[in-house]
Amino acid sequence: MTGQGEQTAHAGLSVRGAGTPESGIVEVMNYGFDRQGLIPLWAGEGDIPTPDFICDAASRALAEGQTFYTYQRGIPPLRQALCEYSKWLYGTPNQAERFYVTGSGMHAIQTVITLCADPGDEMIYHAPAWPNLPAACSVAGVVPVPVAMDFSPEGWSLDLQRVFDAVTEHTRAICINSPSNPTGWVMPQADMVELLAFCRERGLWIVADEVYGRFVYDQKTLGAHGRPLAPSLHHLVEPEDRVLFVNTFSKNWAMTGWRIGWIEGPESIGLETENIIQYSISGVASFMQTAAITALHEGDEFAEGVIADARAGRQIVSEGLAQSGRCRFAEPEGAFYSFFAIDGFKDTDKLGLRLVDEAGIGIAPGSAFGVEGKGFLRICFVRRRDGLREAMDRLNRWIAAQ
Amino acid sequence: MTGQGEQTAHAGLSVRGAGTPESGIVEVMNYGFDRQGLIPLWAGEGDIPTPDFICDAASRALAEGQTFYTYQRGIPPLRQALCEYSKWLYGTPNQAERFYVTGSGMHAIQTVITLCADPGDEMIYHAPAWPNLPAACSVAGVVPVPVAMDFSPEGWSLDLQRVFDAVTEHTRAICINSPSNPTGWVMPQADMVELLAFCRERGLWIVADEVYGRFVYDQKTLGAHGRPLAPSLHHLVEPEDRVLFVNTFSKNWAMTGWRIGWIEGPESIGLETENIIQYSISGVASFMQTAAITALHEGDEFAEGVIADARAGRQIVSEGLAQSGRCRFAEPEGAFYSFFAIDGFKDTDKLGLRLVDEAGIGIAPGSAFGVEGKGFLRICFVRRRDGLREAMDRLNRWIAAQ
Repeated sequence: MTGQGEQTAHAGLSVRGAGTPESGIVEVMNYGFDRQGLIPLWAGEGDIPTPDFICDAASRALAEGQTFYTYQRGIPPLRQALCEYSKWLYGTPNQAERFYVTGSGMHAIQTVITLCADPGDEMIYHAPAWPNLPAACSVAGVVPVPVAMDFSPEGWSLDLQRVFDAVTEHTRAICINSPSNPTGWVMPQADMVELLAFCRERGLWIVADEVYGRFVYDQKTLGAHGRPLAPSLHHLVEPEDRVLFVNTFSKNWAMTGWRIGWIEGPESIGLETENIIQYSISGVASFMQTAAITALHEGDEFAEGVIADARAGRQIVSEGLAQSGRCRFAEPEGAFYSFFAIDGFKDTDKLGLRLVDEAGIGIAPGSAFGVEGKGFLRICFVRRRDGLREAMDRLNRWIAAQ
Repeated sequence: MTGQGEQTAHAGLSVRGAGTPESGIVEVMNYGFDRQGLIPLWAGEGDIPTPDFICDAASRALAEGQTFYTYQRGIPPLRQALCEYSKWLYGTPNQAERFYVTGSGMHAIQTVITLCADPGDEMIYHAPAWPNLPAACSVAGVVPVPVAMDFSPEGWSLDLQRVFDAVTEHTRAICINSPSNPTGWVMPQADMVELLAFCRERGLWIVADEVYGRFVYDQKTLGAHGRPLAPSLHHLVEPEDRVLFVNTFSKNWAMTGWRIGWIEGPESIGLETENIIQYSISGVASFMQTAAITALHEGDEFAEGVIADARAGRQIVSEGLAQSGRCRFAEPEGAFYSFFAIDGFKDTDKLGLRLVDEAGIGIAPGSAFGVEGKGFLRICFVRRRDGLREAMDRLNRWIAAQ
């Protein structure tokens, strides 16, 4: 008994419990959450609450007594609505049985990790990356294997050969997040074709995070109905391909706080997917699912507004960053983040905290997205325009004072 | 290439993805969910929807725009309300920082498994048991080690020495569910004292599932305010003991479908707990948390009504089972289930499905709770009295016809 703390509860935790790192995004959020006057651009969410017509649908469902246990895969009408939405958006056939409702996009990711990989297996992802993906792998005992992307002022890129070279006998899946958080990179369709062929040949899973698929700025129109849409594996996959899409209601319909998302994958793994949902959260509230149906059925105009806000925000932030004369960045092709570096700041690890104190803005440090993001900062630009302009002014004043 | 199906998506799943068994409870529920006129007693939920005052609180919070990302440990007012509730219920001191909000009691269990144990580690539990506990261990790569309980018409019992003998160098935690689902067993306080001393000495965690703590029928009054209460580790633990309570809003306040629960544990593991929540579901909807505060502040009369219903239901079911003359069971000391065997039916595995078809009642097979439950059936009795009486009549008619 040395009194050195060996007997604390902390010391008794599992390796994964004690060793899972704090999200560098959450660290800044917790630090600045209650600051008066701060402009928060740290998280991947806008500043508009969920629209009334979606909230009202939840309230009505609550009043109707939708408060009991329900289907673990999601209520059939929501699975059908997700299928119809997918068919409408991508212009490709689909089946409701391929859709599984989850308790957030994060929970969708956790679920597919478990479905694909056992402890000791490997999953490949490209980095910089949303930290929750590799962290969720680690918690599940799965080894997350990063493949570094390349930055140039023309944009971020991913060398697909480097991805293929990272595959070992332990690899079970390759995770693609396109459009990418935080880099704004969009995978070219030709690369998707090559990736899918490779994975089919090797029997590997693809985890496709296309959450930001409608947030795309310079693409040719690829979606149905003349809508801009990033290249999608939806246009390439067969129903029983080993491709698992993870998605969320958070972004298109301003439902970040709701915690509801979905998986799209082979119908043949329905029971297994249901079981993993059962043994993690045991389903999603029916009244939320009913509101999610309303979002899909009636939310297109709202979603288009969010996308328009993001497009305008992107311009404001790009102009602001250019104005400083001291920022390096590539204009993002997709998603709703600017990922930029400031000359003279090689380590941005604690810069997020400083900017809370010294500039009154909340920005996520690039190191939160892996060592590949070190030296960068991430701004979310799906925000009201006046707030974004003010934030860029504050940032530029702060940079000028350094 | 033999065409034998090696290349199906199913074959590509992880061992845990493919191997996690379907819940035997859910199997029956899925089988009978939409049957007209069926009386469902299969799940651990009543037939009363969440009361209006709780639903209304959620609707108001939604209308107020509580739809953004929030604190991963739970919003501070809910953590405070949980602390006050605990102090009121147990009459013991507590701190709000010991409480963490989760996306269901199931998610609380998943979270504490990960906090305590790494892949290959072992967790001990007593069986028959709610199947989601060992299944969640398996999904997390942790080995669930059952210790069989003993049945006699006087009640189920757990030989504590058998628990201690099951401990190996790989054991990280002992899980105690008292009052127990499905057996109705209540752990005597003297055993809790002995268990806690043992775990303190060995540095083991206790996972304490006291979800049914207020559903207790023959106990001396142990709670504050003269309320019946099962013996609780709350009366024994120090703040930094390695004890993790898992709990849920589902039972006391008829919120089964909401998916909101909590963990109570050492303040020193706050960041680690937050991280595991972050990387699994990334928090619980604020509007749900606001409604949960209302449940705690204004829900006592409602909860007492649910408990009174359970008490009445227990009597109806016990009388019904006795009436048949062919059922073996012990009157449950706590929780809200009767776990009984029917003479002549050694294997109840598929009996739940038969009773759906042949008797119009939904009952969970005992084998759903492990091999230790083989030959038993579980009825949930926290239901309206007329429905329960009708269900027992149907059961007895069916038994008489065999």
